[in-house]
Amino acid sequence: MRRRNLSVVLGAVAAHGPLTRPLSRADVAARVGLTRAAVSSLVDELIGRGALTEAETAPDGRVGRPGRALSVSDRGPAGLGLEIGVTHLGACVVDLRGEPRVWRRAERANAGRPAGQVLAEIAALAAEAEAEARDLGLRVEGRVLAVPGVVPNEAVGRIERAPNLDWRSVGVADHWPDQDTVPEPENEANLGALAEYWNAEQAEETFVHVSAEAGIGAALVIDGQLFRGVRGFAGELGHIPVYPDGVRCACGARGCLEQYAGQAAVLREAGLEQHGRQGDPVALLAERAGAGHAPTLAALDRAGRALGLALASAVDLIDPDGLVLGGIYAELAEWLLPSVRAELADRVRVRPWAPEALRPSALGRRGPVLGAAQTTIRRIMADPTLLPAG
Amino acid sequence: MRRRNLSVVLGAVAAHGPLTRPLSRADVAARVGLTRAAVSSLVDELIGRGALTEAETAPDGRVGRPGRALSVSDRGPAGLGLEIGVTHLGACVVDLRGEPRVWRRAERANAGRPAGQVLAEIAALAAEAEAEARDLGLRVEGRVLAVPGVVPNEAVGRIERAPNLDWRSVGVADHWPDQDTVPEPENEANLGALAEYWNAEQAEETFVHVSAEAGIGAALVIDGQLFRGVRGFAGELGHIPVYPDGVRCACGARGCLEQYAGQAAVLREAGLEQHGRQGDPVALLAERAGAGHAPTLAALDRAGRALGLALASAVDLIDPDGLVLGGIYAELAEWLLPSVRAELADRVRVRPWAPEALRPSALGRRGPVLGAAQTTIRRIMADPTLLPAG
Repeated sequence: MRRRNLSVVLGAVAAHGPLTRPLSRADVAARVGLTRAAVSSLVDELIGRGALTEAETAPDGRVGRPGRALSVSDRGPAGLGLEIGVTHLGACVVDLRGEPRVWRRAERANAGRPAGQVLAEIAALAAEAEAEARDLGLRVEGRVLAVPGVVPNEAVGRIERAPNLDWRSVGVADHWPDQDTVPEPENEANLGALAEYWNAEQAEETFVHVSAEAGIGAALVIDGQLFRGVRGFAGELGHIPVYPDGVRCACGARGCLEQYAGQAAVLREAGLEQHGRQGDPVALLAERAGAGHAPTLAALDRAGRALGLALASAVDLIDPDGLVLGGIYAELAEWLLPSVRAELADRVRVRPWAPEALRPSALGRRGPVLGAAQTTIRRIMADPTLLPAG
Repeated sequence: MRRRNLSVVLGAVAAHGPLTRPLSRADVAARVGLTRAAVSSLVDELIGRGALTEAETAPDGRVGRPGRALSVSDRGPAGLGLEIGVTHLGACVVDLRGEPRVWRRAERANAGRPAGQVLAEIAALAAEAEAEARDLGLRVEGRVLAVPGVVPNEAVGRIERAPNLDWRSVGVADHWPDQDTVPEPENEANLGALAEYWNAEQAEETFVHVSAEAGIGAALVIDGQLFRGVRGFAGELGHIPVYPDGVRCACGARGCLEQYAGQAAVLREAGLEQHGRQGDPVALLAERAGAGHAPTLAALDRAGRALGLALASAVDLIDPDGLVLGGIYAELAEWLLPSVRAELADRVRVRPWAPEALRPSALGRRGPVLGAAQTTIRRIMADPTLLPAG
């Protein structure tokens, strides 16, 4: 009960959002419907645990004495998000307000490299990010690692398969240098979808979020909850057969979406495979498309058509409120949206479907690592006793 | 609280199942963890409402005096299920044990006929079934109508669209002769899936159930609950694009599953379109396939391949425990299973998938009408106060 009330009080302060006027203990009591004495005791505990701060405010003129204003702490408890991409490593630290305070990103060709080597490198990046966070007065309370692979529901800390890295059954702890800081792996598409739900101004309650990097993943949020499927494999959009007799995929099947709308396929179709090896291939695609480069425009149109076909199946099966294009697709949305929307309009005929129900994510490629970092914050907000008592 | 306890006691008696030995009030008290006095009061109320019966049992030899045995009533409360198919009308009455007691089925070419005419005919069939049920001592407490169309979550009693009947926005009550017996419409695929969940010996908790009649529908059961989607349109399997540049569908799109695996498409491909107009087309297909008729075998193989493609998308997106082929597919399973399983094996490569996770329904074409009838029983079992007090 007290645990729940701690969460309610912390949530009320967080919901106050951008400070229009100072929020007092009495204000919080009025909002949450508890007595002022009960709220004061809860606030004291939350201050002790480092979740809230209380500052003197300047007298506001009307009342002669200074007030005291509560806010969610921007020092103390923090969440670390890590990400292993096919072509990069990333780290992010968010404070208890959910605000990113530290970002790290390093380009790395991770495909086919041994898991131990990559995990040692991301551990080093994590240590750097934690050190920088410490300098800001932040203390990392939880660590989550976004990976481009499946993380089964039943296996703790194990990446079952990451096809684009060519990894199978990798236990993260087995390769982590410091057993006190081992992160919990989670599928990057799942984390991207959660980040969208937590951060979008008007997030749908039931939506399909597509999160493309080198591979294509998707995740289903149903009634505000991530739907992981029976084994944790739900949302495997990249291997939906869009053209059954089409191109052979690395997975062994033919005509998978990834062979038409994956980053490598788009670069190849645009004739930019060589150029793509230096610098940021997504920036390159955007630049060429913006300049009217016909093969790039054709490749993006083809990708959008294939994506529209796969998403038509998702709409038919799941009946979501919306579809969100995240990851690299968010940055290429200008050229993808028209063809994806056209394909959806052609395919979804029995039931109503509005073109605007498909939208790009505002987070783009930062989604998964941000979601990884915010996972810890969400857990603390739901149960502040996870924080050490002051 | 009492409502919940009534449900618990009724459930305990129902779970006793086939009578191995008589179940006494004391036995029930021991099972549900309530006092004998409390259980006796609940049992009295359930007897008064007609949900339970208590009979004298013969002395069992060991104990000298006769006992009293509780059982769920096979008289009294009942549920009526109705079904409008594209080529038939159906009715079924089940007693409180969930056992079907009355069946009615009439072949009718309903496609394109006015809704008022078809609804008047099913109302007449319903009245006949209710009369026969009355003769058995049964009293219909609720009525549900299975329809081959979408029934939106937000609209009460309205069939939004039934493409194979060519109906749009039909209010059932508007055409029903007796306002006291208006049934609640529900999508037939949803009811077929629920019937499978309620009746199968070993039902999965999360599965996709395909329910084909003239059209192809599917329904998703997630953690034992029907997932209807945001608007009630989830599971629209028949219009998944399996061959994007394929045959034009009645819905306006190209290459929809229904154009390859729908009943009309299979009959056409088998060269049995004319024959199919007399008698039962499914029995005809089974007979020809059983006799080794090559065009029929080829048509079923083609249907199975297309179905496997659509189901591969469902497995990739939803990650279910199992897939169930219901409706006409259950009766054609012998010829469909090999090609559906082969296609799934070819397409589902990134994650494990066992061929046996696809199975035929034991209910076949009776599923939806049985599910419709049992819906009322399930509601009563969850809340026995829905029954009039004795």
